[in-house]
Amino acid sequence: MLSQVVELIEKKKAFAITTHIKPDGDGLGSSLGLCWLLKSLGKDADVIVRGEVPPAYRELPGADQIRDVSYLNGKYDAVFVIECSDLERPGIEGLADAVTVNIDHHSTGDQFGTINWIDPTASAVGEMIYNLCKAIGGRITKEIAECVYMALVTDTGSFHYSNTTDRTLKVASELVKAGAKPAEISGAVYNNYPWSRIELMRRVLDTVKRDETGKVASMRQTLRMRQESGAIDGDNNGFVNIPLAARDIVAVVYMREIEAGKYRVSLRSKGSINVAKIAEKFGGGGHRNAAGLQVEGDWDLREAELVGILSREIEAQEEGDAADKR
Amino acid sequence: MLSQVVELIEKKKAFAITTHIKPDGDGLGSSLGLCWLLKSLGKDADVIVRGEVPPAYRELPGADQIRDVSYLNGKYDAVFVIECSDLERPGIEGLADAVTVNIDHHSTGDQFGTINWIDPTASAVGEMIYNLCKAIGGRITKEIAECVYMALVTDTGSFHYSNTTDRTLKVASELVKAGAKPAEISGAVYNNYPWSRIELMRRVLDTVKRDETGKVASMRQTLRMRQESGAIDGDNNGFVNIPLAARDIVAVVYMREIEAGKYRVSLRSKGSINVAKIAEKFGGGGHRNAAGLQVEGDWDLREAELVGILSREIEAQEEGDAADKR
Repeated sequence: MLSQVVELIEKKKAFAITTHIKPDGDGLGSSLGLCWLLKSLGKDADVIVRGEVPPAYRELPGADQIRDVSYLNGKYDAVFVIECSDLERPGIEGLADAVTVNIDHHSTGDQFGTINWIDPTASAVGEMIYNLCKAIGGRITKEIAECVYMALVTDTGSFHYSNTTDRTLKVASELVKAGAKPAEISGAVYNNYPWSRIELMRRVLDTVKRDETGKVASMRQTLRMRQESGAIDGDNNGFVNIPLAARDIVAVVYMREIEAGKYRVSLRSKGSINVAKIAEKFGGGGHRNAAGLQVEGDWDLREAELVGILSREIEAQEEGDAADKR
Repeated sequence: MLSQVVELIEKKKAFAITTHIKPDGDGLGSSLGLCWLLKSLGKDADVIVRGEVPPAYRELPGADQIRDVSYLNGKYDAVFVIECSDLERPGIEGLADAVTVNIDHHSTGDQFGTINWIDPTASAVGEMIYNLCKAIGGRITKEIAECVYMALVTDTGSFHYSNTTDRTLKVASELVKAGAKPAEISGAVYNNYPWSRIELMRRVLDTVKRDETGKVASMRQTLRMRQESGAIDGDNNGFVNIPLAARDIVAVVYMREIEAGKYRVSLRSKGSINVAKIAEKFGGGGHRNAAGLQVEGDWDLREAELVGILSREIEAQEEGDAADKR
């Protein structure tokens, strides 16, 4: 819990901070924000992350000093592990032997840390880093503000998602007061795509269609589309939400060809339609409104099958709702 | 100014509130928020707007009680005119004879009101309505909170634009505390499109291309695309920003055919590239990073001309920047 984290920081001197592989805005923003906080308290601190930092986060203060995983060695008093469900997620060897501080806002992870500070009411770990700064009597510097604002913006989908609370917005306000620039930070995330994303989007969007109920949309990405557009990892992030933004669409099936006859499928839904349950039947998983799975075989048949399951689910739900009203 | 507005509300009893035609989230949200505030103070108040309320705003509390323009008559003590540059913008006859209160956050409009309260530091008129509520000692009810949150979200592009300040986010936080639900309000705006928008988007996006510098993107909408997709007004809002989200794209030319050989053009840019100046040369206008104009003639030629002007502008700017650094 928080008081243990404060005590540990006050007692020790040298800290490493890490987050999960394929780090996102909350993982990196919170890690860098914590690093700046520790340094402002006169501590030694390094952020250590496996793999490349995505372009959206390269302008964050301190991003150019992120260390490679080989840098972790016995010289740290403790390692902060940010937003990880278990000790394997950072992809760093030797963590099991270290004093670790598990900081997360998901309640579903392992309690793997020497200290575990889990706050599922926080919209992002960034919000927790802000609270830590306040609890320890630190000052929100411009660097901390910029990093933590990035964490909030990305994990709340620009304050769109239902995890956005009055506290999230209050913290965001304090961060802007301390020097974070909303337009610059949002721009780094949302105006920082390679052109290949646009090329891929036009091709994928050209396959979009609705089923006969008008409530389920489907969309495809072929291997050839990726080649033609020179797409890189991450280029198709968010595509699945484009048809979901239509008023009458309740669910989306987005299939990506990973090799001939093999497809990665993203399912999205609105409201009470539970796509995680459907994904689980196919060996996949996820949340109620966002899930993933893999299927093999004939593309048209597999797509029709998934669209059919979803449209029957929607129909059943609507019948249930209608019955409730009677 | 604010004190005069407070005094007028305290002295008078019956108020009308209006905003510009083709009302947006700030115009409608602020008008409805003010209406709820006046009612909570025991006053009589009606919102009167010309034309249809767009779908995104129909779920706002009070939206179903918005009056048609024919409803304005002599019985109001004063008329609030929200976010209008002049007294013609609401499209309502008889306003010139009324006591009017001009409330706006743009400093470029006429001082047409009996009272003029203009605050260019406010991100949205919604922020001013919140300040009015506080100044007059009102309580932020759930209804006021929902309407004003809509105003903030739409006028700041979900807290993306550079008009987002720490005060904007502080007010947003207070509104959420008072009952506004960020996910519901954002969903009403961003997940409320007709399917025709998706159909139009796929067609328009299929025309996107870059010039040889890789810095200017262009895109087209033909009359036929509108017909084929069954598009309605507003369906193409935001399309111009899709290519602008690519890292290397500095400017976008988006041409829409309004009749054979006649095109409405949207220009967008990043940073210091001033598209308003370019638009003005063609009889159009706008802001530094967003402007519009109309051209006639051969589509390819007109497009090439505009793309050429923009790419030369970008080149000149980059040379200037390089010279500054030397």
